[in-house]
Amino acid sequence: MAVSWRIGLRSDFANQLPVGQNFACAVRSRSAPGTVVCCTGYRERIVPGISCATPPELESVSESRKSLFSAAALARAEPVSTPDVEALLDTLKWDSQGLVVAIAQHVDTGAILMQGFANRDAISATLGSRHATFYSRSRSCLWTKGETSRNFINVVDVFLDCDRDSIIYLGKPDGPTCHTGAETCYFTPAFESSSSEALSTLYMLESTIASRKAEVSAKPSWTKKLLENPKLLCSKIREEADELCKTVEEQEGRERTVSEIADLLYHSMVLCSLQDVKLEEVMAVLRGRFSKSGVEEKASRKVKAQS
Amino acid sequence: MAVSWRIGLRSDFANQLPVGQNFACAVRSRSAPGTVVCCTGYRERIVPGISCATPPELESVSESRKSLFSAAALARAEPVSTPDVEALLDTLKWDSQGLVVAIAQHVDTGAILMQGFANRDAISATLGSRHATFYSRSRSCLWTKGETSRNFINVVDVFLDCDRDSIIYLGKPDGPTCHTGAETCYFTPAFESSSSEALSTLYMLESTIASRKAEVSAKPSWTKKLLENPKLLCSKIREEADELCKTVEEQEGRERTVSEIADLLYHSMVLCSLQDVKLEEVMAVLRGRFSKSGVEEKASRKVKAQS
Repeated sequence: MAVSWRIGLRSDFANQLPVGQNFACAVRSRSAPGTVVCCTGYRERIVPGISCATPPELESVSESRKSLFSAAALARAEPVSTPDVEALLDTLKWDSQGLVVAIAQHVDTGAILMQGFANRDAISATLGSRHATFYSRSRSCLWTKGETSRNFINVVDVFLDCDRDSIIYLGKPDGPTCHTGAETCYFTPAFESSSSEALSTLYMLESTIASRKAEVSAKPSWTKKLLENPKLLCSKIREEADELCKTVEEQEGRERTVSEIADLLYHSMVLCSLQDVKLEEVMAVLRGRFSKSGVEEKASRKVKAQS
Repeated sequence: MAVSWRIGLRSDFANQLPVGQNFACAVRSRSAPGTVVCCTGYRERIVPGISCATPPELESVSESRKSLFSAAALARAEPVSTPDVEALLDTLKWDSQGLVVAIAQHVDTGAILMQGFANRDAISATLGSRHATFYSRSRSCLWTKGETSRNFINVVDVFLDCDRDSIIYLGKPDGPTCHTGAETCYFTPAFESSSSEALSTLYMLESTIASRKAEVSAKPSWTKKLLENPKLLCSKIREEADELCKTVEEQEGRERTVSEIADLLYHSMVLCSLQDVKLEEVMAVLRGRFSKSGVEEKASRKVKAQS
């Protein structure tokens, strides 16, 4: 899906300039070398000539303050919305400030990475660039998660809630999402001695296994014993796989299947921990094999205007 | 953690009455049989005598309109906050309306169930009752998800984000969360032919396997073949478990481990589908075995006032 891009002064940069101060710069797009875009003062200029699937790379050509600022600091490219996207946006229920709640969720682990707000332009930018983009209420401008840290959230799917006033950006983060360096922004439990992050069961278990592995003077635990004895671990995995199969072969019923798959999963996760493998990597492989939601495939999709 | 409960007329019930109409009823708590609580008109009365870990059950004693309404329709119990909870709430960054964003997430699958807003009373009620409770901006009252449908979200953990203006209720739903009957409110993809719900990779794969199983005139697929041939499926599970173990025994490296665990997981999930087992059930078993976050254990925890 080729989209057009609007290149303008970055609002957060413009906000740093004294009010009324004029500022001239020129930015050129590497993706469309013939086009020189001039941004003067606070004004943006639509550049109709730039049409490409990924955001155009920008480079400074000249500026009134002689290379004080890089192209990335001066300007940003935002996709110009398509009619399909506009039709979708028309169906959303915006609040009095023209916003909906936007939640970024990890496509592989299901972890809620962060929550912000989005206006029409932010959702349009997200759909066009595939980078989760929000509207900052404090700075009154769009901001793309990762524009400073380079830890973009690469959006593979977008979902609306039944009221159409809340949106999920389902994506793969390039690195930690939180500005503190944490994987997600939700690392503050309301209760003492709770998990350190909001983790669903599988990842809570992974975290528990990792804690056992890290313990030096551990009280005796089965997990620790397995980690210290790979031969035992492997024999248990073969045994548990066999027991899982027997629930089918000997028609032991679904309750037994639930219990045996839990056993096999746990022991396999201990093996992952032993091999320094993160479940997230396993999920990424499964997504690559089975998902119909790859970015490439999605790029050719038609945007859905109505539910 | 025993908490005190305030019993009052339900706001949504009171809202249905004509303005200014007086209404008298009496509600008694089964949990504290000696206490009779009178609610008149729109006024609430604090009942200091009721202190118990779970919400008091209510029953009608008498009312001016002779049993037109059940106790559950007339009144609701809300926990009276403890000093610990108040200290926690003091650290949150409330917006101009005294609200934060509240996201309910499925503790076992990681699915985002719904998103609403919460004020101090809503969070206090959630922490006290363990039922996800929100503030309805349209009706200007608290509402507990499930108070009508009985599909409560049983909260096992609560997390704040780094800005302390967004909160996750991590919980186990009693049934579908959405008023439409869908499991979650996020069933509207922005793109054609995307998944039908916002699912992370493991649950997307489960959904894909379920689709293969449901297909009648299926084009040939490996999943379908395994589902139709349990003997082949079981031999594959034993083979994949063996190959996973060999990545350790023969030091084949972590990349191989990632690939082999993905194979084992996929084949085990096909077996689950064959046995009509949902991954969610498996996760619930794992949580029961490994979680430190059970409701019972949590009930004895101290609420954390500062991050």
